[in-house]
Amino acid sequence: MNALKSILKDIELIKAQSPLIHNITNFVVMNNTANALLALGASPVMAHASEEVEEMTSIASALVLNIGTLSPTWIDSMKIAGRTASSKNIPIILDPVGAGATSYRSRICRELIQDCNPTVIRGNASEIMSLVDEEIQTKGVDSTSSSLHAVEYAKVLAQKTGAIVSISGEIDYITDGTRVNEVRGGSPLMPRVTGMGCTATALTAAFLAVNKNALEAATHAMELMSWVGEKAAKQAKGPGTMQLFFLDELYQVATGEVQA
Amino acid sequence: MNALKSILKDIELIKAQSPLIHNITNFVVMNNTANALLALGASPVMAHASEEVEEMTSIASALVLNIGTLSPTWIDSMKIAGRTASSKNIPIILDPVGAGATSYRSRICRELIQDCNPTVIRGNASEIMSLVDEEIQTKGVDSTSSSLHAVEYAKVLAQKTGAIVSISGEIDYITDGTRVNEVRGGSPLMPRVTGMGCTATALTAAFLAVNKNALEAATHAMELMSWVGEKAAKQAKGPGTMQLFFLDELYQVATGEVQA
Amino acid sequence: MNALKSILKDIELIKAQSPLIHNITNFVVMNNTANALLALGASPVMAHASEEVEEMTSIASALVLNIGTLSPTWIDSMKIAGRTASSKNIPIILDPVGAGATSYRSRICRELIQDCNPTVIRGNASEIMSLVDEEIQTKGVDSTSSSLHAVEYAKVLAQKTGAIVSISGEIDYITDGTRVNEVRGGSPLMPRVTGMGCTATALTAAFLAVNKNALEAATHAMELMSWVGEKAAKQAKGPGTMQLFFLDELYQVATGEVQA
Repeated sequence: MNALKSILKDIELIKAQSPLIHNITNFVVMNNTANALLALGASPVMAHASEEVEEMTSIASALVLNIGTLSPTWIDSMKIAGRTASSKNIPIILDPVGAGATSYRSRICRELIQDCNPTVIRGNASEIMSLVDEEIQTKGVDSTSSSLHAVEYAKVLAQKTGAIVSISGEIDYITDGTRVNEVRGGSPLMPRVTGMGCTATALTAAFLAVNKNALEAATHAMELMSWVGEKAAKQAKGPGTMQLFFLDELYQVATGEVQA
Repeated sequence: MNALKSILKDIELIKAQSPLIHNITNFVVMNNTANALLALGASPVMAHASEEVEEMTSIASALVLNIGTLSPTWIDSMKIAGRTASSKNIPIILDPVGAGATSYRSRICRELIQDCNPTVIRGNASEIMSLVDEEIQTKGVDSTSSSLHAVEYAKVLAQKTGAIVSISGEIDYITDGTRVNEVRGGSPLMPRVTGMGCTATALTAAFLAVNKNALEAATHAMELMSWVGEKAAKQAKGPGTMQLFFLDELYQVATGEVQA
Repeated sequence: MNALKSILKDIELIKAQSPLIHNITNFVVMNNTANALLALGASPVMAHASEEVEEMTSIASALVLNIGTLSPTWIDSMKIAGRTASSKNIPIILDPVGAGATSYRSRICRELIQDCNPTVIRGNASEIMSLVDEEIQTKGVDSTSSSLHAVEYAKVLAQKTGAIVSISGEIDYITDGTRVNEVRGGSPLMPRVTGMGCTATALTAAFLAVNKNALEAATHAMELMSWVGEKAAKQAKGPGTMQLFFLDELYQVATGEVQA
């Protein structure tokens, strides 16, 4: 399977380089995304003080901006970190959590896109759609649309921003505005675990750190999520054990116990 | 068993409506309470910026105010959200974590009760007692009294505030100031897992979102905690596995694999 | 085994006294360290508002200062809490997470050491080395040096500050500036779980709360980490299950199911 070989090649690079991933992310998922990055072999750091983000981003190999529990001081730091990354060609991934749920979130996302030129924007269908059409409402942080419905919006967003746009859902779609990659698989247990989307974002950052082809890197991350999610779901009895088996399986893939 | 049928009826409504629960809660438990709400079929959102809480609360079906890691900006947002919910008849549940441990926590609780008219107040014995008698001290966030000892205080608090008061402990007591419901069961492993009380609060919010009878809703939440806790404890070897089996069992109840 | 008997004696005291441990710590690990303290039989509280930290520290038996996700308001509160603890002879443990990664972190660590006179400083090799030699760089929060390489730095730091210095790594070293205790064991899975170092810090606080001999207390904590980590790793299939089995095993040791 070619796709799998290509993913495993990136994973080898992550293991070899252990890239530092700077996360300015939300309180709910910090523990999960740090653990997912560690399981994969990357080196996560969470830092949000405006006093240090420029320095921290400068030594990082990728930057995650995730607005899940945003507030003004955090957004200020995201902008500083984002501009730093942008000026140093460090890849940035933006997760517009809850865009469309409040006008504040929608506005901040537009500003972050404007200021930081993210390499990848990854969200659920409603979030991505709301970034294109302000009339579209998100219910909190959960999508109210199917990912298929959002593909055309994703293409428009990619064309407008120059970012790769990655939509997660029952099927994931990743687009550069022209080409569209599809990823199937995963498990219905995944949306029942908080932070699975944010984990996808964090893993995308790890792939971006070692693969200059951002469309491929973003696709690899979703392929890996889907693959590991399926393996974990086979053993899980619910969302509690799902979380852990997901990390265990991710670790087993990353430490090379799985062959292409 | 009538109680069980009545709980399962509410759970059916939660599954059907997937109510949005807006949580302004503490850093320690956000992940746990989001996962518990997802496992039950509700849709959690955590948002605390004063810029957006009014909008977020307005689209929610219930509001959780939990002061576990309070600070002035968070309290300001709790008050905005609380007043919004109160004016729109969106049920509010207040968790006075650590009330009685510092004078700041005790004062803030009195202000939140005054400003927001919570539908339910849920805490441990010491916390509830300290809201009635300022002389009573809490040891950090853990109770130093039995829940039975606190029942009379709970009744007074319910009468004074108009809220349903729910005390968790070896036996849980839920009162409207006159009637007192008792819930037995659970497991001694539950207080050894952080955030179990906060999880009870979050699940109470989900029941309040679908059941107008707040005394019944609050009792259902504690019955469910106790029931699921017992089932999880049977498989757990300690507080680590307890956490996960709790979520797994909650999910299995919520997805209808358990019959009345 | 004498060492084990001495650890179990401290654990008996923790179980009997359930000491309140006040944590001003980082967002990533709060849940883990609260759970580890609960599993061991201590009573954790997380509180960071400048309005209440003096009062909260005053009723605590030990104070944890962990700068993992530092920001100015949190640092102000750490200083208030640290001075309070110092003036009341409440033991303080400082975890200089990421010292050496940014100049802000390094500066704040020096200020906290100066202002609060920590009883114990616990970090990884790079962090400890950077507190002695400003030229040494840390990669985010992960060490780039072996713990053995850091021993001489740890001695210098202990002599300069009067604190016990505890370095975690493949081998842990704990020193008062003259004597050096070594702790072996643990598991390679431990650094793949986020917050294991922060958990070591939290457990050290629990031992400091019941044992006036800070060198012994700090060593006991690392012995326990190593011992429990080994037992957990035997059952774990990756970092996901590792986390939970760690808490389960810690609980089993603490509840006396293990004999010397």
